[in-house]
Amino acid sequence: MNGAETLVKTMLSGGVNVCFANPGTSEMHFVAALDRHPEMRCVLCLFEGGATGAADGYYRMTGQVPATLLHLAPGFGNGYANLHNAKKARSGIVNIVGDHAIWHQHYESPLKGDTAGISQTVSHFTRVSSDAAMVAQDGADAIRAARSNGGQIATLILPANTAWDKADDPARVVAPPVLRRPAASHVARAAQALCQPGAALLIDGRALGEDLISVAARIAASTGCRLLAPYFVPRIRRGAGSVKIERLAYIVEENSAVMAEVKTLVLCGAHRPANFFAYPGKPSLPEAEGTHVFDLCAPDMDSAATLHALHKELGVQVDAPREVLALPALPTGGMSLDKIGQALAALLPKDAIVVDEGITTSRFLTPPTKTARPHDWLCLMGGAIGSGLPLATGAAVACPDRKVVCLTGDGSAMYTLQCLWTMARENLDVVTLVFANRGYQILRLELANVGVDDVGRNAQRMFDVEGPTLDWVALAKGHGVSGTRVTDADGLVAALQAAFSTHGPHLVEVVC
Amino acid sequence: MNGAETLVKTMLSGGVNVCFANPGTSEMHFVAALDRHPEMRCVLCLFEGGATGAADGYYRMTGQVPATLLHLAPGFGNGYANLHNAKKARSGIVNIVGDHAIWHQHYESPLKGDTAGISQTVSHFTRVSSDAAMVAQDGADAIRAARSNGGQIATLILPANTAWDKADDPARVVAPPVLRRPAASHVARAAQALCQPGAALLIDGRALGEDLISVAARIAASTGCRLLAPYFVPRIRRGAGSVKIERLAYIVEENSAVMAEVKTLVLCGAHRPANFFAYPGKPSLPEAEGTHVFDLCAPDMDSAATLHALHKELGVQVDAPREVLALPALPTGGMSLDKIGQALAALLPKDAIVVDEGITTSRFLTPPTKTARPHDWLCLMGGAIGSGLPLATGAAVACPDRKVVCLTGDGSAMYTLQCLWTMARENLDVVTLVFANRGYQILRLELANVGVDDVGRNAQRMFDVEGPTLDWVALAKGHGVSGTRVTDADGLVAALQAAFSTHGPHLVEVVC
Repeated sequence: MNGAETLVKTMLSGGVNVCFANPGTSEMHFVAALDRHPEMRCVLCLFEGGATGAADGYYRMTGQVPATLLHLAPGFGNGYANLHNAKKARSGIVNIVGDHAIWHQHYESPLKGDTAGISQTVSHFTRVSSDAAMVAQDGADAIRAARSNGGQIATLILPANTAWDKADDPARVVAPPVLRRPAASHVARAAQALCQPGAALLIDGRALGEDLISVAARIAASTGCRLLAPYFVPRIRRGAGSVKIERLAYIVEENSAVMAEVKTLVLCGAHRPANFFAYPGKPSLPEAEGTHVFDLCAPDMDSAATLHALHKELGVQVDAPREVLALPALPTGGMSLDKIGQALAALLPKDAIVVDEGITTSRFLTPPTKTARPHDWLCLMGGAIGSGLPLATGAAVACPDRKVVCLTGDGSAMYTLQCLWTMARENLDVVTLVFANRGYQILRLELANVGVDDVGRNAQRMFDVEGPTLDWVALAKGHGVSGTRVTDADGLVAALQAAFSTHGPHLVEVVC
Repeated sequence: MNGAETLVKTMLSGGVNVCFANPGTSEMHFVAALDRHPEMRCVLCLFEGGATGAADGYYRMTGQVPATLLHLAPGFGNGYANLHNAKKARSGIVNIVGDHAIWHQHYESPLKGDTAGISQTVSHFTRVSSDAAMVAQDGADAIRAARSNGGQIATLILPANTAWDKADDPARVVAPPVLRRPAASHVARAAQALCQPGAALLIDGRALGEDLISVAARIAASTGCRLLAPYFVPRIRRGAGSVKIERLAYIVEENSAVMAEVKTLVLCGAHRPANFFAYPGKPSLPEAEGTHVFDLCAPDMDSAATLHALHKELGVQVDAPREVLALPALPTGGMSLDKIGQALAALLPKDAIVVDEGITTSRFLTPPTKTARPHDWLCLMGGAIGSGLPLATGAAVACPDRKVVCLTGDGSAMYTLQCLWTMARENLDVVTLVFANRGYQILRLELANVGVDDVGRNAQRMFDVEGPTLDWVALAKGHGVSGTRVTDADGLVAALQAAFSTHGPHLVEVVC
């Protein structure tokens, strides 16, 4: 048995059995070891950002740590942006990164690079295996790290010789450390604070899970406080039967408006909210001046136990208010953003998984889908566009029996379009809606936000994706995915009805 | 005038007038400043790896430092792999990376990340501007750094407030430090060494420039030493009229064979050669045991002055042997790798720029093109695949009057296919040949190299890009580029004849 084989066995016995891979030569022994273990599901991505983003989507839907397989520092670089997003989602991921044999790193070879260095700028845990005999334990430690503190990025760098040299037994993956909890007295003070006028409870991460959000909603209903969630959340249950919750906003002024009346903000599993960007003369924080921020339970602590303790402390008896099914009529006639929202809300299948990277368009899709059939909604967490198609890929691998709907802009989808091929190869049940507004609409908005009103040639050419326009039906076909282009509401409705009633990947280019 | 404006003015007066850009919100003031300066050519790339790779290609063809415009740590991450390649090519590039306003970095916003940290793992120079008043001087220092030591990666991080706050005047870019030269006594010893039996002169980088390679070749002809270049070189003149030079190899055994008889290896502008990867039981270095490695002039020193000094020391009188035009017959019948080489060699236009990321296929294309019409040849320098289409983009921006021929595998082209759109938008004169062998052929080769003979399902599915196959004609069309699929030699010849006789981007999918 060599180091690579002990690692694969350690991963499988430790519960890591999916690997989103983009391997190269330095990972050949790991690939050979995978070959002897068909119980490890290997999903090939033609670009590393697809692999890391898919791992994020897989974790969000299963809570199980997947692996990625990457190739030296540049391969990690290609996966970096979606690891950044995954980190913000608090997803647990183990990256296996091959590197040159230790002695080969003395010489100037083309692929020599600072693999540990780049990993450390985004991973919670980085380790370089020093010896084949250490690989199994290093792998077990990496898996444990990925499961620690509610989900972390763990990177194990395998110099090629540690993979091919002889090694002994696999290692056992130890359970992660118990999550920290706030003291009972702290919970009691939070309970008192929530009973005061102007109190709000802001929850995020695991606290948004279907069971916990109900606990939080009962607490809110009982105390009279408001229940808030961030604008961007890793996963939230929405639609008919889901608990009612207010969301923060993307636009600075809207965000300030949501927070204006909040006197005490109790954080549970959430960071203190900050605006997405800073702008000249605008605040970084949406809270009103003098708001008391009560940090009940940090995002890396046990928000489940904390909410239950708070619930008990308050002796809550009431039920949580829930959304009631209300579907809009099917739109007809010309295309508009409102009609896209109506069509999606009316047709979204029960238990769909919606991946939202629609950026400017999504703002029109969230209100009407609030009372659609029950579904899960996954947001872009780190602001690094190019997470939509990968997240959808991973979610579909995780949940083969559920329809995945990927909402994405034409600008953002271009960063990781290679995922379409993985969807085709794995026959993933993903319907991708590309909102083809022919440009980075968000940048036009932001140019105005920073105080620039007139757009000249250089800016125009950096905001527009025109001359030529992208042909998304051709791009889908090139990757082996069928596609439809729609230019009016009737076409959109027909395309969604067709795509939602069949299995497998399909792309709809929504010209808007 | 704000910080961004002083930076753009500093760049323009300092000779940086091309910017390969993928901007986001934090760069909006820089974009607004660019708008007031149409003399800065902005080239939009739909993925950052396209921008950084294009900058590399632009520098290799002009020797002029271009800028890239990137968006925070994840944007830098997306550009990382091709910055790695550019670093290995010793290309000079200035990356302008927007970041959050300094005070906003205190808060947990989605895009908060370690921008300086990731930059430092690949850049020679990293600076974070602390104040709008410093931006112009920081920019001037970054440009100087990019021009130093024969070409470097320089990264200037602009917190948004340093771009939008008031600033004074632009700064003047000072010339880079004079390159170091070896002592005259060291040159004299090298001259003696080159006259001994078994001597070889290995040159790389600038020493491969058209003038200097002739000097080196005359030295070799005069002393009787062999003249060598690495397998991967940033740019080399080839074809009829070019000087004859031996190249090292990719395959370990072939590389050892080239070096077997070398007793003294004199390095000028070159690193001591190392094999691409390490393999179990194979050497890292191709040199024979006991080879004397004479480090005459390191890659960051003045190889031009060194070669001229060596030439003078030796009192060279002879001419350099040169290649003579010899074109193969046009191939007919079924497709083979040899026939692809013949067709390319026979039809390659005079002064073409060949970008080579053909990996396994390219090994069949280099021998026949050695005596083709004169051309420049650019290699993948850092082993991070996905550099071909970007390099071709930058080379075509640099040299609008020359035909660019991009040789790429279907596996490698997928990493940065978004460049096709930039080729269409800028109407770049690039003919891309995608060698569609439906997989990562190099990995099959490498699996055997590391001693694994049987390929099972998991490995098979990670080497093959099949089920579905990629449709490159559709992918090109999706990006606005015309395409042709050829499956035999006659079709290839016709497609090349057509593509070489018209201007503008075209893609040929070569099924092989």
